[in-house]
Amino acid sequence: MNATSAMTPEERTAPAADAPTTGGVTLMNRFQVEPGRDDEFLALWTRTSHYFRKQPGFLSLRLHRAVSTDAEYRWVNVANWDSEEHFRAAHTSDEFRAAVTQPGWEHFPSSPMLYQVVTEASASDQ
Amino acid sequence: MNATSAMTPEERTAPAADAPTTGGVTLMNRFQVEPGRDDEFLALWTRTSHYFRKQPGFLSLRLHRAVSTDAEYRWVNVANWDSEEHFRAAHTSDEFRAAVTQPGWEHFPSSPMLYQVVTEASASDQ
Repeated sequence: MNATSAMTPEERTAPAADAPTTGGVTLMNRFQVEPGRDDEFLALWTRTSHYFRKQPGFLSLRLHRAVSTDAEYRWVNVANWDSEEHFRAAHTSDEFRAAVTQPGWEHFPSSPMLYQVVTEASASDQ
Repeated sequence: MNATSAMTPEERTAPAADAPTTGGVTLMNRFQVEPGRDDEFLALWTRTSHYFRKQPGFLSLRLHRAVSTDAEYRWVNVANWDSEEHFRAAHTSDEFRAAVTQPGWEHFPSSPMLYQVVTEASASDQ
């Protein structure tokens, strides 16, 4: 996909699970952003994120930027939801469709994928 | 890269930053795992993770598995470190080299990339 093609709302949504999930889910959404367009991307992403942040089942997010510009996907959003059901509901509304088709998004192709946490550890677990 | 090629310890390490970083860093390490090899991967990854978990500056990790098997990288480790300096030190030791070249890893190509958190939000921020 080149950096100026528009993506449909369906393409902006993580593929369906192979089997029904239980428990929380984690979206990892990677974005292609040309190095000179960081500010433009961040403004558009922030505006769009306000929609998700107010949806039922949204728990938290962290938006990351790669420390090196040679990353294929320089920006990655990692967002936690309480269930796949809530996640899907947030990705099928008219407001969602409007948010991800607003002008500007055509410059930033994304690759969304849904995960579940299998192992968690912190330094204090030692 | 095919799924049976061995990677060097350098290839198992996230590329250098364009400029010196300050503050925490987040590794996202994506792994190609054939669906029938999940148990084998998880055992090898867990064994290897014990090395990182005891290093200075390690903060936390979450290992994720995709909910759909059509993901190119079905497993992703997201690990937080207190600084790039500690992260790099943990990736240049002899113990690191031994851990990531142990038999079995040749089946699981990885794509490590280093990030920093730009935006953080949770549902309670509303």
